[in-house]
Amino acid sequence: MLSEITTSQSVVKYNGRTFTKEKDDIAVESALTIILDGEEFATVVCTPSELTELVVGFLASEGVIRVFQDIQSIQIDEDQGFAYVDLVNKQSIRKDFHSKRFIGSCCGKGRQFYFHNDVRTAKTIMTKLTITPEQCQHLMKQLQESSAYFQQTGGVHNAALCTKSGMMIIRTDIGRHNALDKLFGYCLIHRISLKDKIIAFSGRISSEILLKAAKIGVGIILSKSAPTNLALNLAEELGITAVGFIRGRGFNIYTHQDRITI
Amino acid sequence: MLSEITTSQSVVKYNGRTFTKEKDDIAVESALTIILDGEEFATVVCTPSELTELVVGFLASEGVIRVFQDIQSIQIDEDQGFAYVDLVNKQSIRKDFHSKRFIGSCCGKGRQFYFHNDVRTAKTIMTKLTITPEQCQHLMKQLQESSAYFQQTGGVHNAALCTKSGMMIIRTDIGRHNALDKLFGYCLIHRISLKDKIIAFSGRISSEILLKAAKIGVGIILSKSAPTNLALNLAEELGITAVGFIRGRGFNIYTHQDRITI
Repeated sequence: MLSEITTSQSVVKYNGRTFTKEKDDIAVESALTIILDGEEFATVVCTPSELTELVVGFLASEGVIRVFQDIQSIQIDEDQGFAYVDLVNKQSIRKDFHSKRFIGSCCGKGRQFYFHNDVRTAKTIMTKLTITPEQCQHLMKQLQESSAYFQQTGGVHNAALCTKSGMMIIRTDIGRHNALDKLFGYCLIHRISLKDKIIAFSGRISSEILLKAAKIGVGIILSKSAPTNLALNLAEELGITAVGFIRGRGFNIYTHQDRITI
Repeated sequence: MLSEITTSQSVVKYNGRTFTKEKDDIAVESALTIILDGEEFATVVCTPSELTELVVGFLASEGVIRVFQDIQSIQIDEDQGFAYVDLVNKQSIRKDFHSKRFIGSCCGKGRQFYFHNDVRTAKTIMTKLTITPEQCQHLMKQLQESSAYFQQTGGVHNAALCTKSGMMIIRTDIGRHNALDKLFGYCLIHRISLKDKIIAFSGRISSEILLKAAKIGVGIILSKSAPTNLALNLAEELGITAVGFIRGRGFNIYTHQDRITI
């Protein structure tokens, strides 16, 4: 497992007439297996950077830990692609439970969660934070400028934790949800207060991404891309302002418009 | 669960000066839980179209079935989001096994698979099929033109099964791998011979996508986007020609160049 996020590789380029052999930067993709209290818990395929944050965020997102202090020790073996985590309170993990379908009891009128662990971990967001359209655009522009290099290698996703006035940290991953898990891990490790925070994301707002934002605890998610209807239903219910298609001067507000004020 | 792949929803649009309420097309995202021989097997979050193909392709990809005839009956309940599948030969499925990390025995020199079920299901491709640069470009252009409507709603992935001369079928999904599972299901249901087939894909060629192509059994995968290094290592080993960044007149050939001939 390399600790670089891109690697130089030979490529045959066709320019419309001839083939030439050149070197090109390729995004690195690695498997990281999490061993929890001595047992194989999950394998995440990811960009091998900020792996401690990734593991902490992933475990919190899965409902295994609530705070960073729930972890007694964490040790990453980058070469072999393993993360060894010991919890303070050993629990017998009901693995099956994590991906079990959650069926609401009230005929589709309940929350539209589809996994049990989401029911336990996604929070309703109550923050009174507001931002202006110019701030939305500024944050998305910052995200795009900061990730220009990674965009070059193609197809990696970028997520940034922001305040109104600017980006705090940016995380990159070939997996959409991993980029957000890295942010989540950072917030837990550094005990970041979230009520004045915003997430800017390079990709589509799917239900999975929206749920991650709710688990992290932010009230506003910004994207240059589109949302799905399930993500918007969840955003509506969980009190999250979802803003999409932030491109040039315009954008769309899908839910909880009151946090965007001129 | 709706059987439409987009839905019209109210959106607040900001145009740089004012907010207006408008209707917009949003991609539908639904959960589909597969009940296999009476037991919950997996929940897939997907675009609710071609669900039979999706389930068949998913089960084949997971190594649960090899051919469509391994399925005795399949029944989709779209409203509730359930697929009930009964197999001809009931097996006790070792669920845990499916996502268990596979560790090669020869110090990183073995195949770079990371899941056990991939070791069992991904095939080495031996086809002698060749195509020209113009055919690569033509197929990618056809894919993009055919998916223009879906691209409008943003962020859905499109995969097409093609011959040298043109696209046969195109499948769309908000999940990258689901689009390929739908193609896989189609091929199994209709017993499509794969040795002269090509896959054109709208997204990045990650390891997961490359493995799906190997499981389906095609020798050439075309994309307008980038590959990852793990996908390229697998392509090299599994005998698949990976072509990326097909944009305008140029593109990159990453592996098994011999199938692209002027």
